[in-house]
Amino acid sequence: MAASAGNPQGPIVVIAGGVGAARFLEGAVAAFSPAGIVAIVNVGDDLELAGLHISPDLDTVTYTLAEQVNPETGWGVRDDSFAALERLRALGGSDWFTLGDTDLGTHLYRTERLAAGAPLSVVTGEIAAASGIGCTILPVSDGRLRTIVQTDDGELPFQEYFVRRRQTDTVRGLRFDGAESVEPAPGVHEAITQARAVVIAPSNPFLSIGPVLAVPGLRDCLLTTQAPVVAVSPIIAGAAVKGPAAGIMRSLGHDVSALGVARLYADLIDVFVIDQQDAALAGAIERDTGVGCLATQTLMHGLDEKRALALQTVQAARTAGENRDG
Amino acid sequence: MAASAGNPQGPIVVIAGGVGAARFLEGAVAAFSPAGIVAIVNVGDDLELAGLHISPDLDTVTYTLAEQVNPETGWGVRDDSFAALERLRALGGSDWFTLGDTDLGTHLYRTERLAAGAPLSVVTGEIAAASGIGCTILPVSDGRLRTIVQTDDGELPFQEYFVRRRQTDTVRGLRFDGAESVEPAPGVHEAITQARAVVIAPSNPFLSIGPVLAVPGLRDCLLTTQAPVVAVSPIIAGAAVKGPAAGIMRSLGHDVSALGVARLYADLIDVFVIDQQDAALAGAIERDTGVGCLATQTLMHGLDEKRALALQTVQAARTAGENRDG
Repeated sequence: MAASAGNPQGPIVVIAGGVGAARFLEGAVAAFSPAGIVAIVNVGDDLELAGLHISPDLDTVTYTLAEQVNPETGWGVRDDSFAALERLRALGGSDWFTLGDTDLGTHLYRTERLAAGAPLSVVTGEIAAASGIGCTILPVSDGRLRTIVQTDDGELPFQEYFVRRRQTDTVRGLRFDGAESVEPAPGVHEAITQARAVVIAPSNPFLSIGPVLAVPGLRDCLLTTQAPVVAVSPIIAGAAVKGPAAGIMRSLGHDVSALGVARLYADLIDVFVIDQQDAALAGAIERDTGVGCLATQTLMHGLDEKRALALQTVQAARTAGENRDG
Repeated sequence: MAASAGNPQGPIVVIAGGVGAARFLEGAVAAFSPAGIVAIVNVGDDLELAGLHISPDLDTVTYTLAEQVNPETGWGVRDDSFAALERLRALGGSDWFTLGDTDLGTHLYRTERLAAGAPLSVVTGEIAAASGIGCTILPVSDGRLRTIVQTDDGELPFQEYFVRRRQTDTVRGLRFDGAESVEPAPGVHEAITQARAVVIAPSNPFLSIGPVLAVPGLRDCLLTTQAPVVAVSPIIAGAAVKGPAAGIMRSLGHDVSALGVARLYADLIDVFVIDQQDAALAGAIERDTGVGCLATQTLMHGLDEKRALALQTVQAARTAGENRDG
């Protein structure tokens, strides 16, 4: 949270999950100098599959910013082929996790580099550079952090819940395996501390942002940074734009609304960006949480809307920081 | 070696490397009942690459017998695509080992099953069954056995020598890492002991057959089996049909000829099959090694030639066994 308006020379830091965050980041790199943007990305949904280290959120952010993403799904590689997966299926192997052939090349590279001792943050930077991406993409940690979903059928590894069982289980709780012992990746703490503004992207607060905030020191860093912190609501008119956020909020006893999200982030943020459809909630949010709101168009269809949302979000943060200064 | 003509109800066992052995096996399954054929395959050229367990000789034999092999190379999958490898290359990863996309599906399956605790022999059987292969394909061992090539630049892992450096190093020696501690895979000992005939396929004696014979007990098993043992020369008219066998024989001080090969196998075999081009060597081989020869067409172009070679080879073994009986 801001104690000032933040460092005007500092980076714009975006705390990111997958698809929603990647779209926000597309707008941010269009609106601002890419070199001044740092994405800090969830790794709680990483998995090891058939020997390969897969980092779905890092890949979604990378493919999106490299303009290689499959536009129909928001993840995976555009026009990818599936020969390896078809062979795996023909042999009776696990075919529940979508592995495109080009996508597999990314996993092979990552796995090979990790096996050679390179930290995930270094490998992520190599992939981003080779993909022509101008901003910095950092995994929140180089350590092993895994989201575990607690359901009526017991604990499920994240991708078991998310992909294999298609998010059909009621989420009773979450825990982040390894969270007690991991450290923020090099650069994460510095980026937040020195930021011009920190944006919590419109990602799932529990599944995407939750693991990031579970990394020791991360929450403190957001609480003590001089930079203003802003969150963009992933809930619009009582529903999630994508994914299971609404159901999880409900089953965990939260209001499925922008107000419910604001309560989750209230201690961390200086201002909250909600969709114009929820403009009527702004007063209630401010009364309930003490956090001011900006209501605007948050559904991002084209690049113009993405750029506009990034500009307004960062401006709202700066304004909130300046108001606190004054 | 035969103490009798072998068990007439027993299997035809083929000690196999990669391409040459796979072609011989194609003829064998055409000539005999596939259910009565057991291929015992080299695993010394297996490798771990980017987290995947790759078994090149097992794959070559499997793809060939499944009629999926790339006919131009003799290995890999026909009409395979290379999207994963292209991506790996674009990222600056190791691209020296050819990984086709469909082929990758096989490696993913094998790696996943091994990680789940299945032995390589079980996984190999699963892949063969799913590929519609009627004969038995066994890795010589479920253990970790790796061929190490000793060169003027030091010791090289097999695929480093074979693929990455394109067999350009002079081979000064070989050793088989892990050979002291591995065991034959379940079924290997039984197949050889109960065989109708054992064929050492026309594979590289050092790189393909050498690792098989390095497995503890294998050589003794061949020496004591009741079945006749026959080898097919991979050297024709002083040259290897494929691969670096001739150069290795030369650098290790062996005659680059069918005679040189016969000397390598003399203690193990009852009869030696040489190419008709080398018919003039038959007398010298018999005088030098005490092993009789069959000279025939060993270059296999079409299925008819492959079938004919398999029939003649097994018949030569049976005849040698019967002569010993008599």
